[in-house]
Amino acid sequence: MISAGFAMEKLNVGVIGATGMVGQNYVRLLEGHPWFNVVFVAASERSAGKKYSEAVAGRWQMTSPIPESVKDLMVFDAAKVGEAEGECDFIFSAVEMDKERVRALECEYASHGMPVFSNSSAHRWTDDVPMLIPEINPRHLDIIPAQKKNHGWSRGFIVVKPNCSLQSYLTPVYALIKEGYSVDRMILTTLQAVSGAGYPGVASLDIVDNIIPYIGGEEEKSEKEPLKILGSIKDGRFVNSDSMKVSAHCNRVPVVDGHTACVSLGFKEKKPSLEEILSIWSGFKALPQELDLPSAPKQPIIYIAENNRPQPRKDRDIDKAMAVVVGRVRPCNVFDIRFVGLSHNTVRGAAGGGILNAELAVKKKLI
Amino acid sequence: MISAGFAMEKLNVGVIGATGMVGQNYVRLLEGHPWFNVVFVAASERSAGKKYSEAVAGRWQMTSPIPESVKDLMVFDAAKVGEAEGECDFIFSAVEMDKERVRALECEYASHGMPVFSNSSAHRWTDDVPMLIPEINPRHLDIIPAQKKNHGWSRGFIVVKPNCSLQSYLTPVYALIKEGYSVDRMILTTLQAVSGAGYPGVASLDIVDNIIPYIGGEEEKSEKEPLKILGSIKDGRFVNSDSMKVSAHCNRVPVVDGHTACVSLGFKEKKPSLEEILSIWSGFKALPQELDLPSAPKQPIIYIAENNRPQPRKDRDIDKAMAVVVGRVRPCNVFDIRFVGLSHNTVRGAAGGGILNAELAVKKKLI
Amino acid sequence: MISAGFAMEKLNVGVIGATGMVGQNYVRLLEGHPWFNVVFVAASERSAGKKYSEAVAGRWQMTSPIPESVKDLMVFDAAKVGEAEGECDFIFSAVEMDKERVRALECEYASHGMPVFSNSSAHRWTDDVPMLIPEINPRHLDIIPAQKKNHGWSRGFIVVKPNCSLQSYLTPVYALIKEGYSVDRMILTTLQAVSGAGYPGVASLDIVDNIIPYIGGEEEKSEKEPLKILGSIKDGRFVNSDSMKVSAHCNRVPVVDGHTACVSLGFKEKKPSLEEILSIWSGFKALPQELDLPSAPKQPIIYIAENNRPQPRKDRDIDKAMAVVVGRVRPCNVFDIRFVGLSHNTVRGAAGGGILNAELAVKKKLI
Amino acid sequence: MISAGFAMEKLNVGVIGATGMVGQNYVRLLEGHPWFNVVFVAASERSAGKKYSEAVAGRWQMTSPIPESVKDLMVFDAAKVGEAEGECDFIFSAVEMDKERVRALECEYASHGMPVFSNSSAHRWTDDVPMLIPEINPRHLDIIPAQKKNHGWSRGFIVVKPNCSLQSYLTPVYALIKEGYSVDRMILTTLQAVSGAGYPGVASLDIVDNIIPYIGGEEEKSEKEPLKILGSIKDGRFVNSDSMKVSAHCNRVPVVDGHTACVSLGFKEKKPSLEEILSIWSGFKALPQELDLPSAPKQPIIYIAENNRPQPRKDRDIDKAMAVVVGRVRPCNVFDIRFVGLSHNTVRGAAGGGILNAELAVKKKLI
Repeated sequence: MISAGFAMEKLNVGVIGATGMVGQNYVRLLEGHPWFNVVFVAASERSAGKKYSEAVAGRWQMTSPIPESVKDLMVFDAAKVGEAEGECDFIFSAVEMDKERVRALECEYASHGMPVFSNSSAHRWTDDVPMLIPEINPRHLDIIPAQKKNHGWSRGFIVVKPNCSLQSYLTPVYALIKEGYSVDRMILTTLQAVSGAGYPGVASLDIVDNIIPYIGGEEEKSEKEPLKILGSIKDGRFVNSDSMKVSAHCNRVPVVDGHTACVSLGFKEKKPSLEEILSIWSGFKALPQELDLPSAPKQPIIYIAENNRPQPRKDRDIDKAMAVVVGRVRPCNVFDIRFVGLSHNTVRGAAGGGILNAELAVKKKLI
Repeated sequence: MISAGFAMEKLNVGVIGATGMVGQNYVRLLEGHPWFNVVFVAASERSAGKKYSEAVAGRWQMTSPIPESVKDLMVFDAAKVGEAEGECDFIFSAVEMDKERVRALECEYASHGMPVFSNSSAHRWTDDVPMLIPEINPRHLDIIPAQKKNHGWSRGFIVVKPNCSLQSYLTPVYALIKEGYSVDRMILTTLQAVSGAGYPGVASLDIVDNIIPYIGGEEEKSEKEPLKILGSIKDGRFVNSDSMKVSAHCNRVPVVDGHTACVSLGFKEKKPSLEEILSIWSGFKALPQELDLPSAPKQPIIYIAENNRPQPRKDRDIDKAMAVVVGRVRPCNVFDIRFVGLSHNTVRGAAGGGILNAELAVKKKLI
Repeated sequence: MISAGFAMEKLNVGVIGATGMVGQNYVRLLEGHPWFNVVFVAASERSAGKKYSEAVAGRWQMTSPIPESVKDLMVFDAAKVGEAEGECDFIFSAVEMDKERVRALECEYASHGMPVFSNSSAHRWTDDVPMLIPEINPRHLDIIPAQKKNHGWSRGFIVVKPNCSLQSYLTPVYALIKEGYSVDRMILTTLQAVSGAGYPGVASLDIVDNIIPYIGGEEEKSEKEPLKILGSIKDGRFVNSDSMKVSAHCNRVPVVDGHTACVSLGFKEKKPSLEEILSIWSGFKALPQELDLPSAPKQPIIYIAENNRPQPRKDRDIDKAMAVVVGRVRPCNVFDIRFVGLSHNTVRGAAGGGILNAELAVKKKLI
Repeated sequence: MISAGFAMEKLNVGVIGATGMVGQNYVRLLEGHPWFNVVFVAASERSAGKKYSEAVAGRWQMTSPIPESVKDLMVFDAAKVGEAEGECDFIFSAVEMDKERVRALECEYASHGMPVFSNSSAHRWTDDVPMLIPEINPRHLDIIPAQKKNHGWSRGFIVVKPNCSLQSYLTPVYALIKEGYSVDRMILTTLQAVSGAGYPGVASLDIVDNIIPYIGGEEEKSEKEPLKILGSIKDGRFVNSDSMKVSAHCNRVPVVDGHTACVSLGFKEKKPSLEEILSIWSGFKALPQELDLPSAPKQPIIYIAENNRPQPRKDRDIDKAMAVVVGRVRPCNVFDIRFVGLSHNTVRGAAGGGILNAELAVKKKLI
C-alpha cells in the first residue's frame, strides 16, 4: 500500500492510551517522524471528547512541550474501536488496564484491520504474537501470516515489545550468542529508574536516600522473556529457547531515566576473550541498521572504555536514547565474564522500542 | 588489669586519625560507652596542637554535636607515637594515609605496648593479623600470642576489620555454613552508600540522578576478604578458605548510609529449605551476643518478611545500626537461593565494627 | 485529677487517625513517654477490628519498629466515638478527612469528655480554639474554660497546633518581639521536606533532580496562622494580631525530613543589633522549659555559627528534633535582618508538637 | 572583516580554560554553530601539548560525546597568549584562576588583538567592561571604543557576563521596568543547582537528602551585579543604577541543572496588574530576537500558567535552554508582586550566555 522510499506519503498513526506516560512518550517521539503521522489519539472514557492538551493538563510529564500537531486533536474513547477505523493505518497501544481487557481490546483493533504495536505485557505470552527486539529476532515477524490466519484477520495483527529491563543486557548477550558463543547461565542485578513505574509511580518517601530491592513481576519478566525472544517458530507458534537459565535481582533506585544492569555470564562451551567480546560488540549491526530505520541507533551496542561507565545520567541519551551502552567487561570469578549494561527505559525500553518495531514491519511490507 | 564486670574502671582509649570521617564516627559512637573513655586524639601534623573542636571545625560530618568530653582534648600528631604511651590502654586506628605508612605506624603503636584496632585495609593481608567479624571468626583472636611473639611485642598487637561491603552479606552466609550448608559459589551486586567514600568523597554531579557502577578496589576486597575471614590458623599464620568462589559487582548509589547487597548463593551439597534458612537466621547467636558485648546487636541477623525490604533509609538503623538486615529469601534460577542484605556501612561496617572488635578482645582478656 | 509529679500514674491516651503517617509518628514518639500511655488506637472503618500491626502492614513508614505496646492493640473505628469513652483520658487527633468531618468528629470526642489535641487544620480558625506553640502563646490555653462553656462541654476541649512550616521561623521571630523588637514585615521562602506531604505524597518523578515551587494552601497558612498565634483573647474569642504582614513562598525540595526557611525581617521601630539577636536567642527560655516538659527541647532556639548551617539532614534531629535551629543572621539590604531557620516537620512540626501541647495542658491542670 | 549574512565565512574561535566544566560547555555548545568554529583550545600548563580528548579524559562531564572537530585539537598553554594570535578571531574565556591573574590574562589576549568574551567574574567590576545580558543592556557594548582607547587596544576588547543566578529573574524584572514600572525593592531566594559549583564541586554528603543555605559570594553578586547591568555609561565609565535595593538568599539544592528563584518585588510608583505583567512578558522581545541571533531564544521570557511551575528538571531545557521560564505571578502581601523564575545555569547562565554575547558583538560589527 505504501512505498517506504522517496517522497513516501506518511502513514496515519493512532495512539491508544495516549494520555498516560508511555502514550505521552509516543506522542513526543513521533513528532516530526519521517514516516508516521499521529492523527488519532484515544484514552479512557473520562478523557474522551476533550482536546488532547486538556486531557493531559497537569499530567504532561515530558520535558518538551506537547507537539503542536497533537495538542488540538480530540481524544476518543479507546474502547470504541470503530472510531479509529479508516483513520489509522496502524495503532500504537499504550493502554494501562487489566491484562484481560488489554488482550481483548488489542485483538479488536486488529480485527478491525489495524495492526497493533503494543507496549503492554498482555500479549507477550500469546503464542502467535512476536515479542520483538528488531536487532535480535526480526524474523519473528514471519509469524504474522499465521497469526492473521489463526484469527481470521485480513490486515490487522499484533506485535509486542518485551519488558524495559531486558533492553539493558539482552542485545549484548545476543551479539555473543550470534557469533557462536552460547550463553547458558546468567545472573544479573538491575538498578532501575523511577520513570519505569509510571506516574505517580514510586513515592518520594520510598526513594529519596533509599533504594527498593523489589519491583513486582519484574524479575519473572527479566528471566522468562529472553527465552521467547531467543526462541523459534514451530508450526505457527513460538517455542522458547531452553539454552539459558537466568536469575534476575531487580531494584528501584533514585534515578529518573535509564536502567542499569550488572551481568555475570557463563558460556556453554566456547568462551570468547575480552578482546573478541569488544570486537563483536563494536562490529554488531543488525537488520534495523542495515535497513537504516529512522529510529535505529547507528550502533546498537556502544562500549565505553572508562572503568566507571556506563552511568545512567551521563550515557542514557546516546544516539537518540536508542543504543545499549556497555562497559566494564571483565572476567567473572564464578562464571566467565561480567559487564554493565544501560539503556533508556522510556525510550528504547518503551515508546522508542515500539516505534522501531513498527518501522521494521513497514519495511518488511507488513503494513 | 581490668575486670570487665561490676563497677569496672573504664579503659582509656586513643583514636588516631580522629579528625577524618571514620575517626569522627569513633568519637561519636564512643560517647557514653560503658567500658571505654576517649582520652587521646591524634591526627596529621597539621591538626596537632589544636583543640579537637577546632581541628574539625567546618568538617564535622556527624549529625550529633561533638561530644563534650572530647571537644576540648588537644589533638596530637599521630606520627609521634610516644605521646600516646602511658595515656592509652589501647588505640582505635582510623588513619588515612598510604598503606605502607599505615602498616608501619600501627606496628609502632603496638610496639609501644598499645593494642591497635584498625579500620584501615593496610594490615588486612598481614598473615598474622586477624581480620575480625566477632560473630563469624572470634577464634581468629587466638593468633594474638603468635603475632606478639613474631614481633616481640609484650602488650601491643593489631586487629583489623574487613571492608564495609562484606558486612551486608557475609554474616548471613556464614550462619548457613555454620549449620552445615557449605556455600561454594556466590555472585553478588552491592548498592553502596556515598558515606562509604568519606568526605568530600563522591561529587554530587556523579550521583544525583545517577549511579556509578564502579568503586576502586571494592570488588577485589569483597571477593577475597571473605576467604581469610572463613579461613583457619595454621602454624601461627592465616590460611584462606578455598571453599568458595565469589564474584562481586560494586556500585555507588545516591544513598547517604547503608550498603545493600543482592546475593545469589550456591551450596556444595546439602541445600537448606527456605524455612530452614529463616529458622537458622532467626536463631543465629554468636559470641558477642553470648558475652553481651555493649555494641553487639541483640540479634545479629534480622529478617524482614515484607517483600520490598530491607531498604537502606528505613532499616539501616535497626539495633544501634549494628545488625545485618536481610529479606527476600527466594530460590535462584541459576544457583540455589537469593536474598538481599543490608548493613550500616559507617557504623557496623566501620567504627561500630571496630569498637565491637575491641569489646571482644577485652572480654577475652587480651587487653 | 492527676498529679503530674512524683510517682504519677500515666494518663491513658488514644490516637485517632493512628494508621496514617502523622498517627504513626504519634505512636512512635509516645513509646516510653513518661506521662502518657497509648491504650487506644482508631482509624477508618476499613482498619477497624484489625490489630494495629495488621492495619499498618506494608504502610509503616517509621524507621523504628512498631512499639511492642501498641502492635497488638485492636484498631477501632474513629467515627464510633463512644468506643473511646472511659478508655482515654484524652485524644491525639491525626485524622485525615475533609475538614467539615474532622471538625465535627473532634467536637464529638470533646463532647464525650475527652480533650482533643489535634494536628488537623480543621479547627485552626475556630475562634475559641487555641492554635498553640507552647514556647509562644501558652496563655492561649486560658480560653479553654470559655470554649467549654460555649459548647457546654464539662471535661473535653480542643487544642490545635499550627502548620508545620511556621515552626522553622516563628519562634525565633517571637523571641525578638518578646524583647520589644516589634516585627512588622516578613518575606520568607520555605524549602520543605517531602515527608510533609504524607504517604504516598510527592511522586518521585516530581522531586528527583527537581524542586516544586508550590504547595497547595501552604503559603496562605504560613501567612495567616502567625497572626492568630501572636493574637490575643477578647471576650472569649481570639483576635488576630495586626502588627505584621507576611509573604511566604513555599517550595517542596528533595529532602526527607526538615523544613528550612530563608527569612527577611523588618522591625517597626527599634532594631536589635546582630549581637543582641544572638543573645536573645541563646537566652530564650519559655514555659515548656521552665516546667521541664518531657518533650520540650532544653534550648528552644539553637544558633549554629558556621555560615553554611542549618542544614536539614545534619541539624534536624538536634535535641529530640524539637528545637528550632537557626543560622546566618545577617543584615538584609531591603529590610533589617535575614536568617535561616530549620525544624523537623514530622516531629516538632507535627506529632512532637502535639505531644508538647498536651504536656503543657497537663501541667496547667486542664486534664 | 566578515559579513554575518549569507554564505558567511565562519569566525575562528578559541576557548581558553577549555578543559574545565564551563570550557567543556563552550566546546559542546559551539559544535555545529553557524557562525563560529572552534580552532584553538588552551588550558593550564599541565594539559598543554596533549590532545583535547586526552586532556579531558575521565573529566568530560557533558552528556554528549566530545565533538569530533575538537577532540584531536592540541591543547595550548593559556598563559602563552602569543600562541592564539593569528589563529583566533576572538576568544571565549572560561579560565578558573585567582581573579588577579584572570584580569591580567584577559587583558593580554585583548592587547594581542583578540576580543575576549568571559565567563569569569574577574572583570565584572572593571569600570569600562560591559557586563552583558543581550536582552537587557545591549547598549552597554557602546563602551567598547572607549575601553579600547583606555587601553590602547586596536582590535581586542573584553566583555563579561554576570553571575548565573541573576539570569533566573533579572530579565523578567527588566521587562517590567522597560515598560515604565520602576522596581525599587526586591527580596529573593534562589534554589541553585549543583552544576553551578563546577566539578567536583559539592560533595554528595552535603546534598543528598539535604540543602545548603549558603553559597560563598553568591548573595553579594546577586545583589550588586543587577545595579551595573541596569546602570548607564557616563564619561566612558559605567555608573550603577541606584534605583533598586536587592536582598538575596542563595541556597544549593539537590538539582543537577537549573537555578530557580522565588522573587518578591515592590514598584516605586505605578504598579502593573497581573494581566499587564503577563502581557508584558509574553510580548517581550529584545535585540537578540530582532537580530535573530543563532543562540537567542525565540521568546526570552516564557510564562507557564500551571501553578506548580516552573520546575528545573521539567522546564530548564525549553528553547535550547536559553529562555527564562516564569510562573506563579501573584500579589505579594508585603511588596507588590511575587513570581518564580528559572533558567539553565550552565547554558543560559554560563557558556550559552557567553556565546550570545559574542553573537551580538558580531552583529554590531565589533569583531
